[in-house]
Amino acid sequence: MRSTARVRQIPVSFKPGMASSTLRERVRRSTFLEKLAEPEDLAPLFKVTTTTCVSMTLVPKEDAHGLQVGWSGFTGVGYPKRVPTALADLVEQNNLQSKMRFNLFVGASTGPEVEDRWAKLDMIARRYPHQVGKEVAKGINAGRIAFADKHLSMFPQDLTYGYYSLKKKHGDPKKHLDWAIIEATAITEDGHIVPGASVGATPEILETAEKIIIEVNTHLPNLEGLHDISQSFIPPHRQPYLISHPEDRIGKTAIAIDPDRVVAIVESHLPDNTGQNSPEASFPPSLLLAFLAEEVDAGRLPRTLLPLQSGIGNVANSIIGGLADGPFDKVMVWTEVLQDTFLRFFDSGKLDFATATSIKFSPEGFDYFYANWANYKDRLLLRSQQVANSPEIIRRLGIIAMNTPLEVDIYGHANSTCALGSRYVYTTTSVACAEQLIRMLNGLGGSADFLRNAKLSIMHTPSTRPTKTDPTGLSCIVPFASHIDQTGRWRQHDLDVVVTEQGLADLRGLSPRERAPVIINKCAHPDYRDLLMDYYERSLHECLAAGRGHEPHMLRNAFKFHTHLMEHGTMKVPKWD
Amino acid sequence: MRSTARVRQIPVSFKPGMASSTLRERVRRSTFLEKLAEPEDLAPLFKVTTTTCVSMTLVPKEDAHGLQVGWSGFTGVGYPKRVPTALADLVEQNNLQSKMRFNLFVGASTGPEVEDRWAKLDMIARRYPHQVGKEVAKGINAGRIAFADKHLSMFPQDLTYGYYSLKKKHGDPKKHLDWAIIEATAITEDGHIVPGASVGATPEILETAEKIIIEVNTHLPNLEGLHDISQSFIPPHRQPYLISHPEDRIGKTAIAIDPDRVVAIVESHLPDNTGQNSPEASFPPSLLLAFLAEEVDAGRLPRTLLPLQSGIGNVANSIIGGLADGPFDKVMVWTEVLQDTFLRFFDSGKLDFATATSIKFSPEGFDYFYANWANYKDRLLLRSQQVANSPEIIRRLGIIAMNTPLEVDIYGHANSTCALGSRYVYTTTSVACAEQLIRMLNGLGGSADFLRNAKLSIMHTPSTRPTKTDPTGLSCIVPFASHIDQTGRWRQHDLDVVVTEQGLADLRGLSPRERAPVIINKCAHPDYRDLLMDYYERSLHECLAAGRGHEPHMLRNAFKFHTHLMEHGTMKVPKWD
Repeated sequence: MRSTARVRQIPVSFKPGMASSTLRERVRRSTFLEKLAEPEDLAPLFKVTTTTCVSMTLVPKEDAHGLQVGWSGFTGVGYPKRVPTALADLVEQNNLQSKMRFNLFVGASTGPEVEDRWAKLDMIARRYPHQVGKEVAKGINAGRIAFADKHLSMFPQDLTYGYYSLKKKHGDPKKHLDWAIIEATAITEDGHIVPGASVGATPEILETAEKIIIEVNTHLPNLEGLHDISQSFIPPHRQPYLISHPEDRIGKTAIAIDPDRVVAIVESHLPDNTGQNSPEASFPPSLLLAFLAEEVDAGRLPRTLLPLQSGIGNVANSIIGGLADGPFDKVMVWTEVLQDTFLRFFDSGKLDFATATSIKFSPEGFDYFYANWANYKDRLLLRSQQVANSPEIIRRLGIIAMNTPLEVDIYGHANSTCALGSRYVYTTTSVACAEQLIRMLNGLGGSADFLRNAKLSIMHTPSTRPTKTDPTGLSCIVPFASHIDQTGRWRQHDLDVVVTEQGLADLRGLSPRERAPVIINKCAHPDYRDLLMDYYERSLHECLAAGRGHEPHMLRNAFKFHTHLMEHGTMKVPKWD
Repeated sequence: MRSTARVRQIPVSFKPGMASSTLRERVRRSTFLEKLAEPEDLAPLFKVTTTTCVSMTLVPKEDAHGLQVGWSGFTGVGYPKRVPTALADLVEQNNLQSKMRFNLFVGASTGPEVEDRWAKLDMIARRYPHQVGKEVAKGINAGRIAFADKHLSMFPQDLTYGYYSLKKKHGDPKKHLDWAIIEATAITEDGHIVPGASVGATPEILETAEKIIIEVNTHLPNLEGLHDISQSFIPPHRQPYLISHPEDRIGKTAIAIDPDRVVAIVESHLPDNTGQNSPEASFPPSLLLAFLAEEVDAGRLPRTLLPLQSGIGNVANSIIGGLADGPFDKVMVWTEVLQDTFLRFFDSGKLDFATATSIKFSPEGFDYFYANWANYKDRLLLRSQQVANSPEIIRRLGIIAMNTPLEVDIYGHANSTCALGSRYVYTTTSVACAEQLIRMLNGLGGSADFLRNAKLSIMHTPSTRPTKTDPTGLSCIVPFASHIDQTGRWRQHDLDVVVTEQGLADLRGLSPRERAPVIINKCAHPDYRDLLMDYYERSLHECLAAGRGHEPHMLRNAFKFHTHLMEHGTMKVPKWD
């Protein structure tokens, strides 16, 4: 047991820190209290050796692997705050920018005060599988940060498969990460970890890390009981997830770890730096609610609906707000991230149970939530992202997935951005648009996990958005929604339903030539309806004549909405060539 | 029970047919023998009424739904032969072309002698979710046939959800199809149906059909025991598939039906019209076998590997041939379709067990298989496509997916064609290439079900293919593999491994800028290596300067390989602009 031995022998060079009485209550494994430390004393443990000084050449050497560090955190919630900050301070104070660099693995995004600061200090050599932040994006685009995205349900399993440590030569060969830095709200007698307000990839990061630092956050309440932590097996030993209802528990309330790998405990009082949620938009939820009611009447949905997934953003918030005032009772939610409107949905009495991998409330939302913790704790469960985004469970439960696309084309293909985190929306500065399209690279996120496997895949979007010069300058219904970006990062999805404030298009069972008139007539803004119908009819005429009439397009005009927007600040094309 | 009553009252206007002694043995439910009929007597049951005379206007009226007919069959195997032929004869003899038209639902493709003939006679108003055949494609492109593809694991569930019968006004509202025409090799005492050499969507087609005609094929042996038929549940009642090993059985050996819905039994002696399999190519399997052996040595794969999925085509056949001569024992296969080389793999003693949804052997392969049936029957299981292609099981088992792409780009995105059926390959007539690219519309097939959820997603392809004028005129490694077609039908996939006869690129854990040099140096043909590296380096230089260096491209040159091929019969671009 080479690695364990090494961990035990780590010279504890830090002086024991002071523990609050809350911390002493929360850390129920007494030997861990002896490992209490201050972050600034821990930072030097991340020694600057040749292996950590990864010089990321533009064509990186295959063996250029630095220290592999995993953090807890998902959608900017539940990430470690003090140790990463101490490391950034160390770098800043000692001019180690571009010298002390890490391969950073987190389930999804963390707080900008740590991650974006690391990027600004050029401390990130590699960042998988998702990121949000100006400085991170800048580092990726400048060639300093190696980034590859991955479907969020797959990242933790690829980590346990060893796919991110194929060339790792140092340390324990069975541990894919050198360090895990994890936020907890309590530690059990067994040394098991009760996470904060997200689970994400934390179980797999802990499982695969050689050394562990735990930040126990005593600003948050002890969230014990909120989590369902299932063990991650590797094929051929993987078993079915025995979940057939959102309430089903298949695991424990804390993450099991080997206590000997815990190097230090740090107390933290810092809140998650979530910022405000998007407000509810003026998007009317009535069309979608009426559609769901019709599905119930037709016997295609139960009276209580099927478990809902809802993306992030103001339109999604309007829909959830509508459900809080809506006709459906005993509704269940199986989603990735919960936002403030879900509190209203809970309080309405109509939401029976919700499960996700992260709670991303606003600061006020969190205050309210923690103050009323007793009301919610039995109606809420956080799971790992491998489970929350599992295609297996999403398909089995028959999830109703509701997300906001960037745009939808006349055949019902959507350019979807992330179901999580900061969703990209065209800026009103239309000229900057194309550039931003090209640079956009938060990562795939979890959207595809849901969209591909849902029983009903619904996209809700306003029919237009304003530009600087035209209140309806940007049509969200376009002739051709392709992978405009050059990175192949946006995927198309075939939708079941598209809904705008104009109307709802039910695309199920329709062929492309049937979809186009339905989408145009029901969903497009009146300012664009004739233009789009003219595009479709001309395309149809041309393509039928050419014997390729399955999904007709005039390729020369396919992106004219987009080019016209860039040149004239509106998609209102005067005519088709 | 309105519908059952109606079925019982169907006037049996046909005279009972003659039964062979084999048929009398096979049909163990004696009352079914009273329903024996000749196909030509059944054809008039499919009455030409206003509802069946669907005049497919180019913008179809929403209520224009004809008779909904489902057939058994998958990859041209196990489809009904005599009744569809009799219907085609009826149409031909009575000049009912374009008048007697059907909405045709089959799990995947059937034999050209029935499906393509129906298309030629303009008998197909709608064809979901997959098709193969010149006349069908022509009908789709001419606007006569409404076609929409769907991931093959999703089609049967969408059928049971009622998504293909939303506007159906006639008949039993709970039955989504009017007719099921199904091939069987036996019928049990309970009236349950033992399928032929494919399962596909047959269970769901039978479940949702109001009236059933069964063709009992006495040319084939009784295949009882070959199938594992599990019931299809609808959310919220869907349960986990309790399969954690390819051998696990979760169902019965026959498809349960309501015997009262059986209108007629027809005896058939016709073989599946499969044609020859692709020969084994001269593609060397050694690189891939060596990679798998290294994965075993590194502890990332068990000694017996993990269950294999293998696509169709001569490269795939070479790989399976290589495994038959290879170092791995007790190998398991979880795939979509089995071809002739699997017989060799079985006979080598190295393949322990295989499961799929269809067996697509050549005629000689089938003869050999049926003659040696006793050797195979306990090592083989056919499941429905909903199970065989289930993301749930593919991910759980940790499938090693091996397929041949159309092309792979320098960042490891593949344009994958179908994992099943006739895989599209560029013609050597390069000028026809672009046109064919645009017209290609067999449907998504099952590839994405496997590629997305596999533990290892491997693409094997020759590095080049010949054109008329250049033996290496077509590079399978290209600068940009995008959705060149205008239908959005090809999807990109991120691969773990790309292998050509030149070498193997292990892309796991690599960022795009790391992948490009690896793919170019290991996989591209020497004729293209410098050209591709020059493309990459120029792109890198330009994009870093522009602050968008994540996955660098020169968009103006991205398709120059393809345009040069069309103009000059080779992808050997003299220089980049």
